[in-house]
Amino acid sequence: MDIAFTLPLAATSDTAGVLTDLFLVLLAAKLGDEVFRRIGQPVIVGEILGGILIGPSILGLVEVGEVLRVFSELGVVFLLFWVGLETRLSEMRAVGRIAVTVGSAGVVLPFLVGIGLGLALGESTETSVFLGAALAATSAGITSATFLDLGIARSRAARTVLGAAVVDDILALILLSVAVGMAADGGVDASKIVLALAIAIAFVGFVALGGTQLLQRRPKLLQAPRFAASPLLPAVLLCLGLAAFSASIGLAALIGAFLAGMIVAETKDHTSIEEEVRPLYAFFPPFFFAFIGIELDLGALLDGHALLLLGAITVLAAAAKLVPAYLAARGLGKREAAIVGIGMIPRGEVGIVIASIGAAEGVVDAELFAVVVGMSILTTLLAPFALKRLSRGAGPARPAAPQPARR
Amino acid sequence: MDIAFTLPLAATSDTAGVLTDLFLVLLAAKLGDEVFRRIGQPVIVGEILGGILIGPSILGLVEVGEVLRVFSELGVVFLLFWVGLETRLSEMRAVGRIAVTVGSAGVVLPFLVGIGLGLALGESTETSVFLGAALAATSAGITSATFLDLGIARSRAARTVLGAAVVDDILALILLSVAVGMAADGGVDASKIVLALAIAIAFVGFVALGGTQLLQRRPKLLQAPRFAASPLLPAVLLCLGLAAFSASIGLAALIGAFLAGMIVAETKDHTSIEEEVRPLYAFFPPFFFAFIGIELDLGALLDGHALLLLGAITVLAAAAKLVPAYLAARGLGKREAAIVGIGMIPRGEVGIVIASIGAAEGVVDAELFAVVVGMSILTTLLAPFALKRLSRGAGPARPAAPQPARR
Repeated sequence: MDIAFTLPLAATSDTAGVLTDLFLVLLAAKLGDEVFRRIGQPVIVGEILGGILIGPSILGLVEVGEVLRVFSELGVVFLLFWVGLETRLSEMRAVGRIAVTVGSAGVVLPFLVGIGLGLALGESTETSVFLGAALAATSAGITSATFLDLGIARSRAARTVLGAAVVDDILALILLSVAVGMAADGGVDASKIVLALAIAIAFVGFVALGGTQLLQRRPKLLQAPRFAASPLLPAVLLCLGLAAFSASIGLAALIGAFLAGMIVAETKDHTSIEEEVRPLYAFFPPFFFAFIGIELDLGALLDGHALLLLGAITVLAAAAKLVPAYLAARGLGKREAAIVGIGMIPRGEVGIVIASIGAAEGVVDAELFAVVVGMSILTTLLAPFALKRLSRGAGPARPAAPQPARR
Repeated sequence: MDIAFTLPLAATSDTAGVLTDLFLVLLAAKLGDEVFRRIGQPVIVGEILGGILIGPSILGLVEVGEVLRVFSELGVVFLLFWVGLETRLSEMRAVGRIAVTVGSAGVVLPFLVGIGLGLALGESTETSVFLGAALAATSAGITSATFLDLGIARSRAARTVLGAAVVDDILALILLSVAVGMAADGGVDASKIVLALAIAIAFVGFVALGGTQLLQRRPKLLQAPRFAASPLLPAVLLCLGLAAFSASIGLAALIGAFLAGMIVAETKDHTSIEEEVRPLYAFFPPFFFAFIGIELDLGALLDGHALLLLGAITVLAAAAKLVPAYLAARGLGKREAAIVGIGMIPRGEVGIVIASIGAAEGVVDAELFAVVVGMSILTTLLAPFALKRLSRGAGPARPAAPQPARR
């Protein structure tokens, strides 16, 4: 929506409207950031609340549209690209086994709880499976941003959550395939799902191992083209390319972006790539957080039944992730296991995406959609506060470079 | 279009498609850049040809769509923001009078030539007025990028062209209002046009004078918010806000971005704002250049009549800008006057936008649309070559900071 003064003259109003939307969303996110920084609370919560404020729920200045959705997607892509830049393959290997355990445990229980809850509510099997898939999701974006803001992104617990989120997304690919298959024609093609799984695992493994080794051996490769006075644009091309491929095989785009960041990190000793990526990391992610708030429809939640449902689903969603993840991560010690458990709670954009797909397939109705979006946002808002409290005094696992906050 | 391998599983294909488009467009632009850098030719021509290659004219990998249009718009916005960052108000004032003369002369003759040509071809008055407006346009984006690539962006000639392009855009606002008014209801509301003109001039004057003075006095203002560890995001917000407002009053968005850059430049002595804007300037503008190529429809130009028309319009368009601009800039000396004259020739995106509006109003048919797009691209491709030749040995008017090329 265009709230600026508009003369009814030229047909440039499309441009004006889109630029105004982008301006308003970035402004709202940064105002929320500002307020929450001043009261000492988690920045990303402020950015999400900024989005709720200007979205359809309250002021109605902007609406959900294709351009904002793309900026939101690029927001989480550049966020995870940045996280990847801060991650070495060896660090991920060190937490590999425990991350797989946490990720698997954190998918199975919430999925079953979601299905059970759906059936108990009298929903169809198809709808219940979607509810299960939405509860099984984990938002690597939200948790990563919180860990970055708290300065503990390089801790063992943060690495574990990140690894678990990747495992979780691969498993979610299967769940979602099952859910869509059931909703579309009532049948599930097992061979298709096995193929998808094999492709996803091969992609992650091949890119993570092969890509990092290639740039370890030839760290100047990104500066080989003449247009690349610095490695920035080759690195961004790698990020967009892997994100697009990742999305096209059914994984989250952010997984490709994370892998790209981890590959590019191998050139870090030789260039100032982080300094160059930082402005993109400052510009795009606020759109991701604000957009989560814009997607909320408070109006649809303002009745007793919906509120009750929202409360119950949110409590179940939190507990069904926290408990198995905590138990699976016990080997890290109590406090770190608690950080892992809470870090797995936020459903963020992933829960919303799954609910949207269910709505598009016609098996998730308007109320359930609003409830799942509300649950995704509530679990997202809870975790940063709890993590902030827990992380006090929890230093990084090893002396790490200082973690500058997002500007 | 999604050319990546796609599994028919999840409904994430929208994301995959958009990310693939963005990846392909950036890749094509940078490959064009690479090839033209290697053969020593103007980089932006390479980027436009990259767009033609992947666009509907040849490979058909991407199509004109809303998201690419927004990225193109942000490309020219961040391009002119960068140019503004390199510009001081005093430098613009020094060329003020001559820029107004060049801009005015460079609008009146092409407008009359366009109308005359349209009438001579048997077109309606409404159509002829649109043709005139398209010929009167000047692309500040194309010329600025060429001057930046040649390292003469701070020369007197470059400043003159930039100032003239701003004047040109204000006059184009009037012409376009007349053209749209005639096409829509056959009538022109003079009071509306005077009001639009007054608002446009007040906006440019007020922002340029007031904004620069404000930041001259309080150069740390952009770092006042706590979210702003650096001035980057406040500066980007100023850029998006002024660009959106500029577009909403009927001017080109890039004028607001240019003014924002000039205002932010006042903080340069105190911060490293240029280093921070540079990655955004590297990322977005290639979308602008490639998109110009994507908009070309070579198929519609492949017949004798259209080709003849294209040739005639292109020659007239070039001559009708070159001659009056050269004469108006004679005071700068012959070579600089020639640089100004040639610098005014590219119609770039502005000619295409005007033709699009005419097509939307139903007075520009498919053939004429393709011809005007072709003319805009041909004038855009010609100028960099000529400027490159002329600029050899033409140093900046005063010792300037080194101009790093776009990466």
